[in-house]
Amino acid sequence: MAGCGETLYGARIGRGFWSAFRDTVVREGIPYQWKALNDEIEDAEPSRCMRNFRIAAGKEKGEFHGFWFQDSDVAKWLEGVAYSLRWHPDPQLEALADGAIRDVVDAQQSDGYMDTYYIINGLDKRWTNLKDHHELYVAGHMIEAAVAYYQATGKRVLLDAVLRLVDHIDSVIGPEEGKLHGYPGHPVIEMALMRLYGVTGDKKHLRLAEYFVRQRGASPLYFKEEDERNGNGFYWKDSHFQYQYYQAGIPFLQQKHAEGHAVRAMYLYSGAADVARATGDATLADTCRRLWDSTVKRRMYVTGAVGSSEYGESFTFDYDLPNDTVYGETCASIALVFFARRMLALEKKSEYADVMERALYNGVISGMQLDGKRFFYVNPLEVLPVACEVDQHKRHVKPQRQKWFGCACCPPNIIRLLASLEDYIYTAENDEVFVHLYAAGAVQFEKNWNRVVLSTRTNYPWEGDVAFEIQADRPCEFGLNLRVPGWCKKYAVYVNGEPVDAELEEGYLHIRRRWEDGDEVSLALDMPVRLVRANPRVREDAGKLAVCRGPIVYCLEEADNGADLHLARLGDAKPDDFDVEYLPDKLGGIVQLSCDGLRQTDAGWGEALYSDDAPDEAVPARLTFIPYYSWANRDVGEMQVWTRA
Amino acid sequence: MAGCGETLYGARIGRGFWSAFRDTVVREGIPYQWKALNDEIEDAEPSRCMRNFRIAAGKEKGEFHGFWFQDSDVAKWLEGVAYSLRWHPDPQLEALADGAIRDVVDAQQSDGYMDTYYIINGLDKRWTNLKDHHELYVAGHMIEAAVAYYQATGKRVLLDAVLRLVDHIDSVIGPEEGKLHGYPGHPVIEMALMRLYGVTGDKKHLRLAEYFVRQRGASPLYFKEEDERNGNGFYWKDSHFQYQYYQAGIPFLQQKHAEGHAVRAMYLYSGAADVARATGDATLADTCRRLWDSTVKRRMYVTGAVGSSEYGESFTFDYDLPNDTVYGETCASIALVFFARRMLALEKKSEYADVMERALYNGVISGMQLDGKRFFYVNPLEVLPVACEVDQHKRHVKPQRQKWFGCACCPPNIIRLLASLEDYIYTAENDEVFVHLYAAGAVQFEKNWNRVVLSTRTNYPWEGDVAFEIQADRPCEFGLNLRVPGWCKKYAVYVNGEPVDAELEEGYLHIRRRWEDGDEVSLALDMPVRLVRANPRVREDAGKLAVCRGPIVYCLEEADNGADLHLARLGDAKPDDFDVEYLPDKLGGIVQLSCDGLRQTDAGWGEALYSDDAPDEAVPARLTFIPYYSWANRDVGEMQVWTRA
Repeated sequence: MAGCGETLYGARIGRGFWSAFRDTVVREGIPYQWKALNDEIEDAEPSRCMRNFRIAAGKEKGEFHGFWFQDSDVAKWLEGVAYSLRWHPDPQLEALADGAIRDVVDAQQSDGYMDTYYIINGLDKRWTNLKDHHELYVAGHMIEAAVAYYQATGKRVLLDAVLRLVDHIDSVIGPEEGKLHGYPGHPVIEMALMRLYGVTGDKKHLRLAEYFVRQRGASPLYFKEEDERNGNGFYWKDSHFQYQYYQAGIPFLQQKHAEGHAVRAMYLYSGAADVARATGDATLADTCRRLWDSTVKRRMYVTGAVGSSEYGESFTFDYDLPNDTVYGETCASIALVFFARRMLALEKKSEYADVMERALYNGVISGMQLDGKRFFYVNPLEVLPVACEVDQHKRHVKPQRQKWFGCACCPPNIIRLLASLEDYIYTAENDEVFVHLYAAGAVQFEKNWNRVVLSTRTNYPWEGDVAFEIQADRPCEFGLNLRVPGWCKKYAVYVNGEPVDAELEEGYLHIRRRWEDGDEVSLALDMPVRLVRANPRVREDAGKLAVCRGPIVYCLEEADNGADLHLARLGDAKPDDFDVEYLPDKLGGIVQLSCDGLRQTDAGWGEALYSDDAPDEAVPARLTFIPYYSWANRDVGEMQVWTRA
Repeated sequence: MAGCGETLYGARIGRGFWSAFRDTVVREGIPYQWKALNDEIEDAEPSRCMRNFRIAAGKEKGEFHGFWFQDSDVAKWLEGVAYSLRWHPDPQLEALADGAIRDVVDAQQSDGYMDTYYIINGLDKRWTNLKDHHELYVAGHMIEAAVAYYQATGKRVLLDAVLRLVDHIDSVIGPEEGKLHGYPGHPVIEMALMRLYGVTGDKKHLRLAEYFVRQRGASPLYFKEEDERNGNGFYWKDSHFQYQYYQAGIPFLQQKHAEGHAVRAMYLYSGAADVARATGDATLADTCRRLWDSTVKRRMYVTGAVGSSEYGESFTFDYDLPNDTVYGETCASIALVFFARRMLALEKKSEYADVMERALYNGVISGMQLDGKRFFYVNPLEVLPVACEVDQHKRHVKPQRQKWFGCACCPPNIIRLLASLEDYIYTAENDEVFVHLYAAGAVQFEKNWNRVVLSTRTNYPWEGDVAFEIQADRPCEFGLNLRVPGWCKKYAVYVNGEPVDAELEEGYLHIRRRWEDGDEVSLALDMPVRLVRANPRVREDAGKLAVCRGPIVYCLEEADNGADLHLARLGDAKPDDFDVEYLPDKLGGIVQLSCDGLRQTDAGWGEALYSDDAPDEAVPARLTFIPYYSWANRDVGEMQVWTRA
């Protein structure tokens, strides 16, 4: 996370929960997605992404295929490859990526422009529809790929290309007279420019990112002028969104609610938080905090999914969190992780890491099948397969992950996040080291030529014990800040076996001392089953409970519990009544939870549809809960997160 | 109900619940709707219905406006006017209707054809799209209007016109070689032809109705052939509906589930029941029973609304009854009343009358504002106004009735049903008289020149006591069959003050005796508050109760109970705990129900969105329930029928 500016390096993830996912990414995900980008997956929607580049470069003949933002799929794939090469060097893969980069760069125009849609269809029309045509979005992803690839391999081919691209953009868009006073319809370039700035230190990159954030929604409204000037359509004119679909209805600094397209919102807020951190602008930081609160305190699912509605893939209104018509795009949860990570860089408060953790363990990885070969775009919290077919309002909800998508934003987004997950675990500032997430592995940092390695052993999230060991060339004073997750109410921390009375600062246990080589810290987080309620204002969850343990949200699935899951009731089951069992061979290895609950029956109902005297009876029933992320890895069936009390 | 063949006549509705609605229909509804048909309502969608007829007749210049079935709006209005003239003679209105009929008839073509869409746009294309262009639907409504107007006024102008129209249809469509082997995309003509048959006794009319029912869905599929022959589009090709949207995916006699467009389904089943009754065809009657069961035992709301989904205004699947995304078109509940009435003609079982009553008192009259000037198309059971604006899935749900609709099928449909309501109350067969619904008024029948009047006094549905008095020229033996509503568990019946031990036959108390002038029968139906549950298979109502009393379904409305109705809980409130109070000045006079319930609070929640230790607290709260039909007659606000236990 060079863009976030910390001084840590060499974070590693060791054998454990995440290494299994990351191995899948490297072994299956990256090769599978390369095939997808080259249209080699049977029965899957074709991508034509790589072919577009070859056509744009004049190497092949043909027409542009796909969405305006088709180029971004290879950018995200390259970014994911770059991260994987940091911890899984693979010369063959690197050669493949080098080849892809060659195809990408060969399509670049002499003035720096890159976007195969306009290169193939006519450059005269470029920059005429910032609102909908995603040129800046594609540029943003290309920049992120370039920075990641440069940082991972030292190779500058793509970096040099995007530097020329950014110069071109800077010559076309900006506050100066004669330039377009615009900004991207789909943010991401803000974050990307901040990462580029982290590498180049070139203020131009910071200025452009800041301009995109501050200019957004400013009057006169660029998108409106652009529509009028160029005769562009405006799809959201008659909806309640209007320009807030693009988070551009009012100036960014005045925005109060997470509104419009959820991924765009999260990307924008992430970029704004980067800018706020780099510039120290308190007003901008306040805006980010306000939008954070709106997002996670009133508009986020218990799984870390965001975006309540399929219409516009969007936020709706406070506490509107329907479980069965939810959108909860995988990309939106990923983007929420980006946002959380950047808020954490702005200020060390565990609430940011709590949300990051919530999204990661639930709404993000639910997006990928355990074998890495199928993906959810939409991540529902309640599924009745027949409804996904017959009820038009639930048509977007799939009871099974898909092989690929015409709009394939999510699969490579999972890849790039999981492949770079080590960047989300530790940060350091001055001589305070923060551990935000608990995963086996290690991180290294240096202080006055003293190389310190902090290594972590844990079976998290299945167990709450985390052991740290310090290796240092010489004794060394620094603060170790261990996050106490929001879900944890009882914990203890030991240094070399002795209990320590560490102070809790903004959710982190602060242990400052002169550490010596071999020092051991152990953190014991009590990890009971929790029966979680939603705020009473959430209509859809009234009278229902979500079973959780540690950061993991659980669900009932038909494969374990039979159909008609809405008949299941927790009854009097208390957290302590649950059986907690690690099953190494089930669903890739999970802790399964089970309890004696109830199942309502229709005994005595006969054919009656409504009755005031038919019995309201429930019989004892064993309820088996699996981690939400692992659902839909067996037969197609029902699933629900929220179960009646 | 001449089409249903009973020998009763002169049924009258006296002062009471229904007379208020019917006065509104006559005083407000009929004049208002005439204005609407002539585009004289400010800020309402224009109809242009009457103008189309004048253009088609060459009296005005202009283009056709509106839907293919625009003509049907005036037909339904005329039908309603006809019924009203039976009990509220109004020479001025009759003159207005005569004028409208002149405009309609003047547009008729020399070969009998009537349909302004094709007359204005080109007759060469007529009968090329039975599937979607509603020519037979318009014809059906015109036939119903003609029969009703003839029966009410003795005037044959429109009747003669539709007889020519039917001859024309009969020359174009039918089983014979050279004719189109088709049937209507939107049924209604089946019912209409059966009513015409009731007047004409012409077997041709019966045969054509029967053909439309039996031919429906037969192989080779007419709609498919028609599409191929004429290049018509097929909107439902890629949906789960396919041809079942039109109830034409499989032969009618093989259909098992209420599927597709709900109004079309109900109209078709109604017509089929008419045909089954007239032909005595047991297989057809069985099909009607099967589709009845599917409709009312698995796919009907507690309010008598049908059609769970806005997509295709359609049925979905068994027990899928979402309250907030429901369609529940007013026309569909009206059509369910038609279907119930016809099943009742087929066999005297009170379950049909129960459904008829359920729909009438709830899902039908909820469609009209108490002042008769605004209408619901969609009748939701749960409304959160902000959701109707922001949530695309609920955009079809309006928190307030509308002045008019581009597709204005519902308003004149309510008019024609309420104006003819006396036809639904009594039937007679041989010398058995049945009372299906309880309303103040009277009915007359004759037996061997002995004129018998059965008059009814009651304050139903607010009270369960019903008093009958018999006037007869001479003593007369006949059976009096009084329905015991399905909701009633305790009742008593008295003849001249003496308790009678009457047998219950198929839901009717059977009292057969030699009646004398002045005999009095009183029926005491116990009418307690009932807390109704839905069958456990109905997901959306799990853990919830609907408060009902007599045939009336109640709801909570924001105007009485504040916002956030989902926080309301009935707690331990028992039926006997409710206060039952008649409020003459509230909402046109209602029995209001109220009880001490609970209201969940968010005390202790702070900003938390999810918590396992925030209190799950509820405070005592008075809950006030009003009849569902009367909601949305005050300020725009929330409403819910199903309340948590």
